[in-house]
Amino acid sequence: MKTISVQLDSHRYGIDIGEGLLSGVGAACKAAALAGRAAVVSNPTVAPLYADLVTGSLQDAGFSPVMIEIPDGEEFKTSTTLNSIYDRLIEAGLDRRSFIVALGGGVVGDLAGFAAATFLRGIPFVQLPTTLLAQVDSSVGGKTGIDHPLGKNLIGAFYQPHLVLSDVSTLNTLSERHYLAGLAEVIKYGAVLDADLFALLETEVDGLLRRDPVLLGQVVARCCEIKAWVVEQDEREAGLRAVLNYGHTLGHAFEALSGYRDLVHGEAVAIGMVQAALLSRLEGYCSSDDVERIVSLIQRLGLPVTAPEVAQDDLVSALSRDKKNRSGTLQYICNRGIGSHAMHQFTPAQLAEACCKGR
Amino acid sequence: MKTISVQLDSHRYGIDIGEGLLSGVGAACKAAALAGRAAVVSNPTVAPLYADLVTGSLQDAGFSPVMIEIPDGEEFKTSTTLNSIYDRLIEAGLDRRSFIVALGGGVVGDLAGFAAATFLRGIPFVQLPTTLLAQVDSSVGGKTGIDHPLGKNLIGAFYQPHLVLSDVSTLNTLSERHYLAGLAEVIKYGAVLDADLFALLETEVDGLLRRDPVLLGQVVARCCEIKAWVVEQDEREAGLRAVLNYGHTLGHAFEALSGYRDLVHGEAVAIGMVQAALLSRLEGYCSSDDVERIVSLIQRLGLPVTAPEVAQDDLVSALSRDKKNRSGTLQYICNRGIGSHAMHQFTPAQLAEACCKGR
Repeated sequence: MKTISVQLDSHRYGIDIGEGLLSGVGAACKAAALAGRAAVVSNPTVAPLYADLVTGSLQDAGFSPVMIEIPDGEEFKTSTTLNSIYDRLIEAGLDRRSFIVALGGGVVGDLAGFAAATFLRGIPFVQLPTTLLAQVDSSVGGKTGIDHPLGKNLIGAFYQPHLVLSDVSTLNTLSERHYLAGLAEVIKYGAVLDADLFALLETEVDGLLRRDPVLLGQVVARCCEIKAWVVEQDEREAGLRAVLNYGHTLGHAFEALSGYRDLVHGEAVAIGMVQAALLSRLEGYCSSDDVERIVSLIQRLGLPVTAPEVAQDDLVSALSRDKKNRSGTLQYICNRGIGSHAMHQFTPAQLAEACCKGR
Repeated sequence: MKTISVQLDSHRYGIDIGEGLLSGVGAACKAAALAGRAAVVSNPTVAPLYADLVTGSLQDAGFSPVMIEIPDGEEFKTSTTLNSIYDRLIEAGLDRRSFIVALGGGVVGDLAGFAAATFLRGIPFVQLPTTLLAQVDSSVGGKTGIDHPLGKNLIGAFYQPHLVLSDVSTLNTLSERHYLAGLAEVIKYGAVLDADLFALLETEVDGLLRRDPVLLGQVVARCCEIKAWVVEQDEREAGLRAVLNYGHTLGHAFEALSGYRDLVHGEAVAIGMVQAALLSRLEGYCSSDDVERIVSLIQRLGLPVTAPEVAQDDLVSALSRDKKNRSGTLQYICNRGIGSHAMHQFTPAQLAEACCKGR
């Protein structure tokens, strides 16, 4: 097991990464000085696999857990689901010394985390991410929240967990599609923040595709280290944290234009990274060889590289709705070679044109 | 004008207190380095009186404000109203650099503050409290939130404002009942935290009843200083901040048992303080003279002192639902003489019995 320590202004916590950690969650919560009742939030996909293990471990440690099941899928990351969590927390009599455990992927983590941030003005929160995306991305950095009919993640809070246990064994039960989509975020860290990680991924494509647990432990830990370092510099996303949006500006737009159906998040990010690499070369931040390495790694890891056919006007509209849009300009992240980054300003129209012309 | 500076771990801001401040809100926002669009949240009682003044001042300072009106009354402090605020913020195109202005009493401040805490994971927030209760209590300390069908303030966040302007001129348009109810919180600060303030209130009953603006400026400023000092010691309500619950444990129970109809918050607190004084004497924390001074001041300021007729069992149930209930025990605040306090543990049953026996 490896532990990454995250130190933020307001709070310090640890991310434990390794195989078979879920059976020790009760002891880990005790060691983290948690007390009171635990509410475990999960969904019908994850709960049948791991809920007994988790609630059993919490029970053994004396936490008398209550299970809260929410529907599976991004389309349920809504105020309706959030209210159903509040109702259950109140019914179960949780008080300020109780805590919430999120058992699942990003949607469960975002919802359960936002419920923890806002129930009784904030109770402690433990994350047990069971998807690769959640382990390398959403479980670090404290972003919690829900979608609004008019846009994703419009309602939420920055709220740090008390403890994160990333059990890489849970990645074995992940569908191929969602596992590969998680690798897109891993590639991202390498492409703009860590040339060594990028080279490791290139060397270990086979091990990644067969989900080698030792390799995954190593890769997840490195991604968490990188993200923790970025978030420590910039908890509230005022500056450096923007680097994590590499591939995401166009990725989010493609995801939205697909109605969040044809592309899952990681696939959209993969396509967004290809576009980002091409734009980075155009603006002189990297070479054709760098673009070739990025595109090749994305392809070898089974991810899409071709932008979907969308009308240029629709792309402009989608980009204009980006949360990071500042008076008509987007701070766009380019890769500077491999393993480093540069910030470049584009208007939505410029980005859409470059993207549609390149097809 | 007097400015109280509040310094919390995460944030520093100022509370300006004086006459006629609302016309300067635009300039004050500019001076506080706010930018972007402003959304002014108010209700149909307050907006006709002050909205033009506030939006005009914001307009003059270049903020192109949008008005968001919500219904007046605690019964609308709900997720439905909150969602209607989100809808309007999105429609009006507010982004992360925009800010929310709360123009009104505690309900407007709690709702607008919680919307600011959770819209785009947090945007700046300016408070313009127009009731005495909001000026001396809810505008200091960062408590924001909404009620849940099963209990008050169950959903919320600690979120500090960027700036508070307490214009005591607005207290002239407050109904007699709500003005007097606000005085209950003023008495509270004196009773458990400041003997000099308590003595000033005793001397200045006439000035208080005729709403002398100079006196009110002085009293509001002193209350904010006291509350700011308490909150600075204990932002998250882990210890000292509990002292502010003086009169509130039984007060909340009476308020709930009246269905939030027969008693307004300050009236319930007044009755709760009388009970607290009686219990403080019983437990040896103060003399009969102290009780007499507290009861007399409450009466002279036109507030009720007699507990409503409620069944002892109902009172036990209401007290058991208190958010501060810890495994069946309530940390109850007693006055130690006048101007100081002591923490005493009671069970809901003990409190209810003492209270009903005293009738």
